[in-house]
Amino acid sequence: MYETLLMIPGPTMVAPRVLKAMSENIINHRSAAFGEILKETNEMMSEVFQTENQSYILTGSGTAAMEAAVGNITEKGDKVLNIVGGKFGERFMQIAETHGGSPVELKVEWGNAVNPDDVKNILEEEEDIKAVTIVHNETSTGVANPIAEVGKIVKDYDALYVVDTVSSLGGDDVFVDGYGIDICVTGSQKCLAAPPGMAAITLNDDAWDVVDKTETSTYYLNMKKYRKSGEKKPPETPYTPSVSLTYAMREALHIIMEEGLEERILRHKLAAKATRAGVKALGLDLFAQPDAASNTVTAIKMPEGITDKDLRGTMRNKYHIELAGGQDHLKGNVFRIGHMGNITQREIITTISALEMTLKELGFDLEMGKGVAAVAETYLSS
Amino acid sequence: MYETLLMIPGPTMVAPRVLKAMSENIINHRSAAFGEILKETNEMMSEVFQTENQSYILTGSGTAAMEAAVGNITEKGDKVLNIVGGKFGERFMQIAETHGGSPVELKVEWGNAVNPDDVKNILEEEEDIKAVTIVHNETSTGVANPIAEVGKIVKDYDALYVVDTVSSLGGDDVFVDGYGIDICVTGSQKCLAAPPGMAAITLNDDAWDVVDKTETSTYYLNMKKYRKSGEKKPPETPYTPSVSLTYAMREALHIIMEEGLEERILRHKLAAKATRAGVKALGLDLFAQPDAASNTVTAIKMPEGITDKDLRGTMRNKYHIELAGGQDHLKGNVFRIGHMGNITQREIITTISALEMTLKELGFDLEMGKGVAAVAETYLSS
Repeated sequence: MYETLLMIPGPTMVAPRVLKAMSENIINHRSAAFGEILKETNEMMSEVFQTENQSYILTGSGTAAMEAAVGNITEKGDKVLNIVGGKFGERFMQIAETHGGSPVELKVEWGNAVNPDDVKNILEEEEDIKAVTIVHNETSTGVANPIAEVGKIVKDYDALYVVDTVSSLGGDDVFVDGYGIDICVTGSQKCLAAPPGMAAITLNDDAWDVVDKTETSTYYLNMKKYRKSGEKKPPETPYTPSVSLTYAMREALHIIMEEGLEERILRHKLAAKATRAGVKALGLDLFAQPDAASNTVTAIKMPEGITDKDLRGTMRNKYHIELAGGQDHLKGNVFRIGHMGNITQREIITTISALEMTLKELGFDLEMGKGVAAVAETYLSS
Repeated sequence: MYETLLMIPGPTMVAPRVLKAMSENIINHRSAAFGEILKETNEMMSEVFQTENQSYILTGSGTAAMEAAVGNITEKGDKVLNIVGGKFGERFMQIAETHGGSPVELKVEWGNAVNPDDVKNILEEEEDIKAVTIVHNETSTGVANPIAEVGKIVKDYDALYVVDTVSSLGGDDVFVDGYGIDICVTGSQKCLAAPPGMAAITLNDDAWDVVDKTETSTYYLNMKKYRKSGEKKPPETPYTPSVSLTYAMREALHIIMEEGLEERILRHKLAAKATRAGVKALGLDLFAQPDAASNTVTAIKMPEGITDKDLRGTMRNKYHIELAGGQDHLKGNVFRIGHMGNITQREIITTISALEMTLKELGFDLEMGKGVAAVAETYLSS
């Protein structure tokens, strides 16, 4: 009767026209027709990345793109500064280790954003840092890191600036060229609102210089091969791509172009603001520091005496809304509302209303209606 | 007006019900509902691999599965015996090199199958060979290697037997347990007739022992992580999988179960026999040695005086049939007909008939109707 509403930080709801595009017949991935689709998709990716660089879609998850970013520039012993304030920051560091790198960790307390001065201090102290990795939107904590400010600092050093925008691109400000980002990666199933299973990467000339001097330790994600195949006319991928997901990505990117990237980001910011207003009005506490709150996912502290199983179970089984739990040591201690992709006030109102009913039923002391009122007021005053 | 008929060695034609399954709404990849779908899909994969081992679907192309196979068992300096008789044999060797291995190459002339005695001789001579890689069906040459016979030899040595069945599984005999295969990989878009973008791998206990002792040099394709996530209840994947392609794989595997694996393989063998009979009746020469011919793809020498562009261009533009060209040094010298997946006598007759017309139009001396007659006779006498 009800379609489940995905209010998780990916995969997000996919528009019917994207699903329809995905179900078109398979064509030869080495044909001119597919080359045109690939070209158009990669060009739209560059528009969304706001870069003049070539972009590449990859058949794999966002993690594959993270490995493509690090695995193509890291050799044994290379120092990589990893800014780690959550699960995905940790992942970047683990990937650097897998490829023989010697990570320098800048630990940030979960829930906080990195202080750009701390990045500067390490870059001053440590010699030969080859790359700095940062996760723009830390999906695990609902924190947005100041990638523009950190970019201004990294620019003064001889290190590549590698940014994970898996859960922010298309939903928050990401100016790859404007921020001095050398390598940027993203995933299909978050703010871009395409189905999961595809990722994208873009590299500038400085990054390619390093890639060309690095003995790549990944075969499937070897970017030199992607560049070579991409230069063919019509362009190709080095290995058989997911043809259907390419159709879907193209259609999802068309929707973004129709909405307008700026409009879309404003819509995400408003959804985030409304979500935060709604949960705070219910008396719940946000996990992220106020100045660090994400525009695409909100992490909320689990109310005293209520279990993750009860809260998310009721939301799922009674109201058909999927929320996300906490990851690693936050398991059971926070729950997360994703507001990414095709999210309007309708979904936010629905979610906060169901949350009110769920909390009430579970014995949490609240005044019914206060949450949805705060959401509505946020939208009205925007 | 016409839908293009894909007679290439992948991607192959996908059944409408598989495309329909793929366009279902996205669900949470960490939900019990998705866990059930994943479990069923992996279990059916094990049935098709004909193994008692656990199988894992991977979000990536067949090459990703090849790298998962080699990258999880190869460390710096490890000796890997690579049987190389075509492009995909070369790929296995390049992957071993990427992961620090010291490949020992057993070169086989393109168009021939490996002689199992040659494998035995190398295993006798060379010490400490950690793994033997072989491509069952060399898509680039239309050759099937004798994986059962080679398996009998490898069994007597302390080396893992790693078999690429990307373009044979579901279309030719592959008994993973029966042949003593330690690691077997495949792709979605060949004989399984699912859309491209997904791969699968299965490992036995001997393989896992080596994986556990090996420092894995790939993050995205780290099989220890797949095992750990797969052991959860409900099972998960370590990173966000392609939810839509998982739906598609499940549906494609359901179709295989309905047809029956044995029946399906017989159908492929007959399609191969009919294709070979058809092209030989037209006076064309097969590229593969007669005793080495593949059951899923046929490579044909380009007739004197006819260009690849004219032959495949006419087939594509006039008859809406995609054939494949030659790869690497075979470019322009061979063309290939894939007869994988949902292929019946109808597609073979159509293809050989169009080939007759194309060749006639390009000035090749042939007796019209001889090719289709040979196809029909093969089917009638089966």
